[in-house]
Amino acid sequence: MRKLLLVFAASLLCVAANAGKILTDSLYSSVLGRQMRFNVYLPDGFGRDASERYPSVYLLHGLYGNYTDWNKLGNMKPVVDELIGTGEACRMVIIMPDAGGKDIHKVHNGYFNVPGWSYEDFFFSELMPYAESKYNCFSDKSHRAIMGLSMGGGGSAVYAQKYPELFSSCYAISAWLDQPDFDQKGKSMPEDCYYWTCRSVRENSALDYVDKASAAQLDALRGVRWFLDCGDDDFLLQLSMDLHMKMKAAGVKSELRVRNGAHTWEYWHTALRLALPFVSDGFGRQN
Amino acid sequence: MRKLLLVFAASLLCVAANAGKILTDSLYSSVLGRQMRFNVYLPDGFGRDASERYPSVYLLHGLYGNYTDWNKLGNMKPVVDELIGTGEACRMVIIMPDAGGKDIHKVHNGYFNVPGWSYEDFFFSELMPYAESKYNCFSDKSHRAIMGLSMGGGGSAVYAQKYPELFSSCYAISAWLDQPDFDQKGKSMPEDCYYWTCRSVRENSALDYVDKASAAQLDALRGVRWFLDCGDDDFLLQLSMDLHMKMKAAGVKSELRVRNGAHTWEYWHTALRLALPFVSDGFGRQN
Amino acid sequence: MRKLLLVFAASLLCVAANAGKILTDSLYSSVLGRQMRFNVYLPDGFGRDASERYPSVYLLHGLYGNYTDWNKLGNMKPVVDELIGTGEACRMVIIMPDAGGKDIHKVHNGYFNVPGWSYEDFFFSELMPYAESKYNCFSDKSHRAIMGLSMGGGGSAVYAQKYPELFSSCYAISAWLDQPDFDQKGKSMPEDCYYWTCRSVRENSALDYVDKASAAQLDALRGVRWFLDCGDDDFLLQLSMDLHMKMKAAGVKSELRVRNGAHTWEYWHTALRLALPFVSDGFGRQN
Amino acid sequence: MRKLLLVFAASLLCVAANAGKILTDSLYSSVLGRQMRFNVYLPDGFGRDASERYPSVYLLHGLYGNYTDWNKLGNMKPVVDELIGTGEACRMVIIMPDAGGKDIHKVHNGYFNVPGWSYEDFFFSELMPYAESKYNCFSDKSHRAIMGLSMGGGGSAVYAQKYPELFSSCYAISAWLDQPDFDQKGKSMPEDCYYWTCRSVRENSALDYVDKASAAQLDALRGVRWFLDCGDDDFLLQLSMDLHMKMKAAGVKSELRVRNGAHTWEYWHTALRLALPFVSDGFGRQN
Repeated sequence: MRKLLLVFAASLLCVAANAGKILTDSLYSSVLGRQMRFNVYLPDGFGRDASERYPSVYLLHGLYGNYTDWNKLGNMKPVVDELIGTGEACRMVIIMPDAGGKDIHKVHNGYFNVPGWSYEDFFFSELMPYAESKYNCFSDKSHRAIMGLSMGGGGSAVYAQKYPELFSSCYAISAWLDQPDFDQKGKSMPEDCYYWTCRSVRENSALDYVDKASAAQLDALRGVRWFLDCGDDDFLLQLSMDLHMKMKAAGVKSELRVRNGAHTWEYWHTALRLALPFVSDGFGRQN
Repeated sequence: MRKLLLVFAASLLCVAANAGKILTDSLYSSVLGRQMRFNVYLPDGFGRDASERYPSVYLLHGLYGNYTDWNKLGNMKPVVDELIGTGEACRMVIIMPDAGGKDIHKVHNGYFNVPGWSYEDFFFSELMPYAESKYNCFSDKSHRAIMGLSMGGGGSAVYAQKYPELFSSCYAISAWLDQPDFDQKGKSMPEDCYYWTCRSVRENSALDYVDKASAAQLDALRGVRWFLDCGDDDFLLQLSMDLHMKMKAAGVKSELRVRNGAHTWEYWHTALRLALPFVSDGFGRQN
Repeated sequence: MRKLLLVFAASLLCVAANAGKILTDSLYSSVLGRQMRFNVYLPDGFGRDASERYPSVYLLHGLYGNYTDWNKLGNMKPVVDELIGTGEACRMVIIMPDAGGKDIHKVHNGYFNVPGWSYEDFFFSELMPYAESKYNCFSDKSHRAIMGLSMGGGGSAVYAQKYPELFSSCYAISAWLDQPDFDQKGKSMPEDCYYWTCRSVRENSALDYVDKASAAQLDALRGVRWFLDCGDDDFLLQLSMDLHMKMKAAGVKSELRVRNGAHTWEYWHTALRLALPFVSDGFGRQN
Repeated sequence: MRKLLLVFAASLLCVAANAGKILTDSLYSSVLGRQMRFNVYLPDGFGRDASERYPSVYLLHGLYGNYTDWNKLGNMKPVVDELIGTGEACRMVIIMPDAGGKDIHKVHNGYFNVPGWSYEDFFFSELMPYAESKYNCFSDKSHRAIMGLSMGGGGSAVYAQKYPELFSSCYAISAWLDQPDFDQKGKSMPEDCYYWTCRSVRENSALDYVDKASAAQLDALRGVRWFLDCGDDDFLLQLSMDLHMKMKAAGVKSELRVRNGAHTWEYWHTALRLALPFVSDGFGRQN
């Protein structure tokens, strides 16, 4: 009896012994004029060796969401623990920022600058330096990656397009890469946050970026490892397919996967098993 | 703007339109002398055609658990919806019974009869007829399967051994198939429910069953499709490997998979993607 | 020593015992005016019970290829044996017809009627009745499927569009679904067989078919289970993506997978693991 | 017409452009007194930069086989090309030595020293230095791995046990890790090469090695990344399961996978998709 209980208990401890942890942290943003929270995944043994440096991954949530989504709804922790445990992913710090909230008309959702809410500035000038310094991250391109779902998939792709010198890999899931039908003419809804989300997605179109890129910009895109992953029943599928084909035509290598599924957390949860090895394989490489 | 909102809304509806539902139901058990709850998954469109009959799958929880586990912790619903949507699993009714609770010393956990708690009798004489009748299930072996995790994996295997005329397939995950070190000598703990759980696992050993089976019993085992699935870091792994080898040696075909993982919900969640097509492929067959 | 040798030998026998076989057969085609060969996969135990009927799958080769390709280059046999062994695919007869040859300018490649070579007529009026009768196949839609690669992927899709009453499932791999840039004006190459291959692909465009389909035709398409599978580096990828989106827009459900890979036999070999369970899941269903 | 032909041709070139190549090389072995052939896979662009160094992987064939098996029967090339193309495996040199032949009674099969045929000496003192020097390989443990199938799976495991300072990872497939029933008493068959193969497998038992290992030897085993992969219908399965459990009990971490399959080339072909990322993830690590 005692033996069995010990075995069951030991098994629980054993699992715990290989597990990373998720913390909630925050920083005051002068750009946004408020305290901004984020979650951070730290691998097992983080900080034991004070001189150890970690690659960083930014993991972005979608519309209506916040910094807790990937943990609570995406259940990312056991997958990350497992992949690090086998070596399929290397030990890494995963930063899950906050760029939204449920009430999309009253709260700013999105990763781009809009009047009165310069989120992109916050991300690069405040969040990134704060988190990477505090959590012992490398600070070079070759040890940094970005990924996200839906609105955060679009954010990932556009950030990596605009700042290819900062990210070695980009993994965009079910990505909202453009809002083709957006027409701002005659609109006057400065009060509606969601109007600005859509407008900023249109104005930061990842598709337009490739169409209009200079030779130098295209060359810079070749220095990022691209991966687009979208479900065959996802209402945003056309966007990922279009971006893949545009990049291909422009000589920018990208991976595309269309797996079974729609715009769901089960799809995003399973995407982690592809995404983390992919970004991990890119860390420390010279392009 | 309006268009985009409609698209986002439509996408949510679209997902909803393909989805089954989970109900909580209960029945009064004369055997156990109390009301017994269970969850049941019904596929999309269940009951629309009153004459439609469904295959049934019994999905058993583990020690410390209850009938809500597979839904709440195993997040089974999106996986089942998806597999039925593609046709990888057929439309089926999934019954998730209750055989436990957190306080394992004060509450009976387990699928076997112990003094004062004849769970096995309840299962076959009360739960099965009630659920299958109420939810329009076929009532023959060829349309019934059983699966479960840990204690429920053991329960599945032993039920299918003892009642091979009732189940076409058995899928046992991380299965507690025996308690080899259990020694009842000199024990006197009739008050401790967990003592009885362990003792019943020992006395209903799935390994002993194969060792001691008559030719007729072995032949009956060949009429069930067996699948054992256990993680390479699971503390119960030896049991699944032993059962596979014993059955093989006895001429009983079984599938064995050792995937990456331990005794965790992430393992059991991913097992559903193998399990449901497997049991589904067996429905309606003549062995 | 003797024991070990026996074990090694037994293992080889054991593998052999579960294996189907591939035969080469032929029939005289009055339509084409010549003997036409094909390969056929028969599952283990085929014919043991003379009354057993089998579902049939047509497995089509690509440009430059012939009836031996799927066996010799696609190495289909061990995959089929394995999937039938586990029950992931049901026992089935797989017919691999001949529609080509290496010298594409002098030999007709393709699945459509062209002047002097009415391959489509041969397929439906001669090959299908001959093979299904000789190899004990069911003769109804619900037990017949079609699949193929490249030119054969296009052939599969178009046959299933034009004869939805004959096929329960269609699995098109790396499919050549149209030849958009084909321009026949001013061309006069009746001697060049490849000219006619391209022209027939253009005139039998699977994309045009959906665009121009009547309501009744669309409804008939809904009675086929569609699966499109194409590599992200395949030069034909756009065609599969377009067909998927057109069918979706028209309310015809289809599966799309974009996996890693190009126009290669390794891609097609691995496609079998998805394709055979898919077509198998559709056999015997009422749509 | 011309356009299409160009597209088809371009696609073939495109595939070719990403492909590595396989060469046959040989060296004279003073130890064995004869010329010894081997195959070597070189990644695309090998040698373009003369200063580039590559990790090395030793890929061992099985009983009855030779150095051409993994290429001809295992069709390893397209899988390696693909995995390197996506980054799932890094650029590496794969050395496929020769340790056998079809006539197992007249030709020495095996990776261990036997009277008159000191293969193990040849491997470490002649083949390894020759191949690694000629093909620009790193020469440290952290950039060297070993893998193989059946007899070569056993060879891989035992080599990595005996020389843990030389290999960062070991991936053993369907491994012949011991010959438990071998009894040399009263045998006098010095003429029979196969007798010596079996005897050497018994005397170099990977299972015994763990049982008898000193604390220092166990600690050295912890410096190798272990992966055992064996089919659930493989007649050698018990050996892989036993080694996994023994290592686990001894505190040596190892991965075990039991996938569907038997002792077949299809199993070994698919194993490459797991094996190459695994060994690749270990290159350059400090244990």
